[in-house]
This record gives sequence, structure tokens and C-alpha cells, in this order.
Amino acid sequence: MTTLVFGHKSPDTDSTGSPILWSWYLNEVKGQSAKPVLLGEPNTEAAFMLAHWGLEKPEIISSVEAGTPVVIVDTNNPAELPADINAADIRAIIDHHKLVGGLETKGPIDITMRPLACTATIMVDMIGSEMEKCPREVRGAALTCILSDTLEFRSPTTTQHDRDVAEGLARDLGVDLSDYAAQMFAAKSDVSAFSDAELIRMDSKEYEVDGTKFRVSVLETTAPEIPLGRKDSLMETFKTVAAEDGVDEVLLFVVDILKEEATLLVPNDLVKGVAEKSFGATVSGDTVVLPGIMSRKKQIIPNLKV
Amino acid sequence: MTTLVFGHKSPDTDSTGSPILWSWYLNEVKGQSAKPVLLGEPNTEAAFMLAHWGLEKPEIISSVEAGTPVVIVDTNNPAELPADINAADIRAIIDHHKLVGGLETKGPIDITMRPLACTATIMVDMIGSEMEKCPREVRGAALTCILSDTLEFRSPTTTQHDRDVAEGLARDLGVDLSDYAAQMFAAKSDVSAFSDAELIRMDSKEYEVDGTKFRVSVLETTAPEIPLGRKDSLMETFKTVAAEDGVDEVLLFVVDILKEEATLLVPNDLVKGVAEKSFGATVSGDTVVLPGIMSRKKQIIPNLKV
Repeated sequence: MTTLVFGHKSPDTDSTGSPILWSWYLNEVKGQSAKPVLLGEPNTEAAFMLAHWGLEKPEIISSVEAGTPVVIVDTNNPAELPADINAADIRAIIDHHKLVGGLETKGPIDITMRPLACTATIMVDMIGSEMEKCPREVRGAALTCILSDTLEFRSPTTTQHDRDVAEGLARDLGVDLSDYAAQMFAAKSDVSAFSDAELIRMDSKEYEVDGTKFRVSVLETTAPEIPLGRKDSLMETFKTVAAEDGVDEVLLFVVDILKEEATLLVPNDLVKGVAEKSFGATVSGDTVVLPGIMSRKKQIIPNLKV
Repeated sequence: MTTLVFGHKSPDTDSTGSPILWSWYLNEVKGQSAKPVLLGEPNTEAAFMLAHWGLEKPEIISSVEAGTPVVIVDTNNPAELPADINAADIRAIIDHHKLVGGLETKGPIDITMRPLACTATIMVDMIGSEMEKCPREVRGAALTCILSDTLEFRSPTTTQHDRDVAEGLARDLGVDLSDYAAQMFAAKSDVSAFSDAELIRMDSKEYEVDGTKFRVSVLETTAPEIPLGRKDSLMETFKTVAAEDGVDEVLLFVVDILKEEATLLVPNDLVKGVAEKSFGATVSGDTVVLPGIMSRKKQIIPNLKV
């Protein structure tokens, strides 16, 4: 039976590229049968990666048949996985997020979680010298994952090891890092095709603080003027999205990758209070700029107060 | 702040020895400050290991102050850890059991779980060539852990890799494996000092099947006649233990390490049904021999039916 390798719902670059890298490894090095799949449409940056390196878009699935062998990458959160995930035969988990709890396995399995910026970095370490056999397009996917998750080494999640691995891949591939990253970020910034609700849910995690449930959404972009130009209709849509998703409030951070700052939309006093208490910001108006804030994992979630 | 390294409650050999090995590594190789601790009195085999290799008995703790840095080994099950574990600063988890769910971390951490027989085997792999610096008594602890968890390679949880690592350690230490294992198992079999309730809870995990909660207890021994000689009073004590621990029934498997079989105590029709449905056994009387059954993880839990 073919092992399905997948990341989280609303696939970003790491959740699209890492399954491709790991499936290559299982197929070509470990002699198993594996294929990468997606739990939804890849985002624009992930789609750019597939097109740029000539990789086939993995099949999109929404559920997993009981007993199917699966490898879960880039998440360990059941809420970001098919509802029937615990009936699958989970063979391995490779991830770089905090342990959430909720996934259960029938027996002991391979779990590798490391506090690195990117799943692909962990995989390159695990694959070791066998990476020499890895074809150009798959290495290109690994490089794209690391540049994406580190925002070209600007994100505070970046470790020296992520940087070393990405620079090594770029050198071997003859890729100019900053030129390639600029193309990636331009692709990510092209969000014109998405509805307000799609933008809000595109890169979003639910998080509860003292009984208040938030949908904490991030839009990483080199063109913040595009989403900010839609701020009134985005804030109007917060209400619908919150009601549909059973949360109390949406927090949308528009992260300017190049200026290394985030702009938080402030539709009401609840969010104003969050901005003041969590980030020491002074809010006057319906947006507030938070200098240096780039990472939900390292800077937003750990500081969130209501 | 010193990092506390510990395994599960009711510490067996792996939960006593692996914290010693990992603390050595953190202190001497990684330049951190770490110390092994225990969540209860070590069992008789673990106590033998400490005495044989001249290792100090680690301090016994029952709770962890909030924010204390900890490394959890040989379990990922909150029920086997201090009640306040999620308030600690969990730095790493190294384990070889199935993922249970329930532990949560504040940020991404190092988690390494492998389907090997023993935590110490995983650690020896992670420590790699630095094992050369490991002192004799700590290597001795690692060897004891592997021989204990594999029942000297008899248990079906044993992998070739566990065996290779143990044989390598024994060679370096000049230890005769079968002679040393015999001493270990004799120590483990010396259970005369324990009350019936202590024996039942010594190596025990709770497990639910179709709404029936079991305490699944195992006694690994080279002298099954000792616990079986107490079977009437043990079965009488099942009722008290089940009531105190909020389970429906105790299943006590006396595993004969040398004959490679288990004897299940059968106090009533519920357990008789379990023996018949789970293991195809024919029960006549208050015990039943299950040939080849040695591992709760691989053979008992996965087959349990009511």
C-alpha cells in the first residue's frame, strides 16, 4: 500500500514541498512506495515553487481511508489534518511546531520534531549524505521551503542551521538566493484572486487566551498595500469568518517581509486592547504598525494577552 | 537552572538508567547542567543496576515546580508523569512508546521517538561518536536498560539495532551478556518485599477496550512460582486496586522470561472471556498459560478484546 505523505490544511510552501522531498526519499532511497498529497489548494508561493521547478502538483485529498499508511509533516495538530486521521496508520511525524496533543498512534512510530524554522531542514538532516542522489527539482523544493519559512532568514524563527542548509542547497543548485526569494515573495504577495474570507483563512491558526478564542491570521507579503487597501472589507468579513469558525475574534497581521514589521487590523476595542497589552502599541485608528513583528510562532502567540 | 531528566512513575530499569545516560550527555558533552531524578522508588532490577555499577541512586521527586526545565524520557504519557508536568519547561522528549497525546509544549522542542525496544538505544544513536567519552558505569547503565527492555533479546519488541548496540556495549565493557542478564533477572524476580498491591501496580498501564477499563500489569520474572504462589491473595487484591484506581478489572500477566510464556490470572468470567477472545486460550481454572506472550506493547495491548 502506498504511503501518503502530507502536511497541514491550507498548504503553504513547507507543507507542499516537504512531502515531495520526503516521498522522494522513501521511494528512491528507502525503496518504499510513497506519494505526496495536499490537503487543499497550495498557496500562491507554493504554486510558484511547483511551476518554477517543473514539479507536478500533488493530488488534493480531503480524507484518508482507515488503515492507510501516512506520514504527517509540518504539523502535529489534529485540527489541521483530516477528521479521520487517527484511523489512519500513522507511520511517522516530522515537524517543527510545538507539541499540541491529540494525535494518537497504535504503536511506537518514528517521530522527529526539532526547534528549527522549517520541516525541510529537518528532513535534509535525516536524509544526510543520501541528499547527493536527490534530483535538482526536489532540492529546489527543499530550498524554497526554507526560504519561505525563514522569510529569507529574516524571521526570528531562523536558526543558523536552517541558513547553512539553505545556502548549501542554493550553492549546489547555482541559485542566487536573494533573486530567487524575491520571485517567491512576489508570488506570495499576489493575493488578488482570493476573497476576503480566503485571505483571512489562508495562513491562520486558532489560539485561545483566557477564554477568548482567536483566529490568528498572518499575511506575509512584499506588497502590504494590496491587502491593506482592502482593510475595510476584510474587517467586515472578520465577523462572518469568526461566526462560521466558532471563534470570538480574528487577528489579521499583514507582515511586511522587507520592512520587517507587521500591521494589525483593529476593528474594535477588543483588538485594540490586544495590541496594547500584547505588543505595548499605541493605537489610534483601525490599523497599528508593530515594528519587528514577523513570526506568529515566536512573537505573536507567546505574547498574546486580552 | 538545572534541567531535570526523568522517566515514568514506578521507574523500571530504562526509566532509571536512561536519565543517567542523558544527564551525563547534557553535562559532559553539551556543557549544560542536568541531573537525573526518579518519580518513585526504582524496581529491584533498577536498584541492582545502580548497585552493580556503583551509580548513586537519583533523588526521588513527586512534583515539578512551574518553569523548571525538564527532559522526559521513556514515556510521553501525562498519566505516568507528575500532575503539574505541563507547567514545566519541557525541553525534550525521547521515547519509544506509542504517541498517547496530552503532553503540550509552549514552543517547538526536540522530540525523538523511534520504534526501538529501549530508550537507551535511541540515546546511544543520538550521542553517536561522543559515546567514546562515556564512563564505564554509565555505559553499564545503558547496557542494562537494553537487556531489560528486550528481556535479553527474547521480547518481540527487540530490533536488530537494539541487539547490535547492546552487544557493542557489552564487548567494550568486557561483560558476559548472558551471565549479566541472569543476575539482572534474578534481581527483578526478587519480589518478596512487595505487597500484593505493589506487585500489581509495579509495571502496569491503564488501557480501555470498548468501554471497559483495564489495569494491564506485567511481572517479568525467571521465578514465576514466587508470584504464582501468591495468586489467591493477588486476585483478592485486584478488587481493591481496581476500585482505588478507577478501573474495571486488573489483568496480571506473569511473564516467564526463560520459558518465553505468560501466565494470566483468571479471577472471573470477564477475564476468562478476555483470555479466550484475545489469545484464543482455553481456560479451565484460575490461571492460563499463554505460550510466546512476553510483550504488553506488541502482543497484549494490540490483541485485547472483551
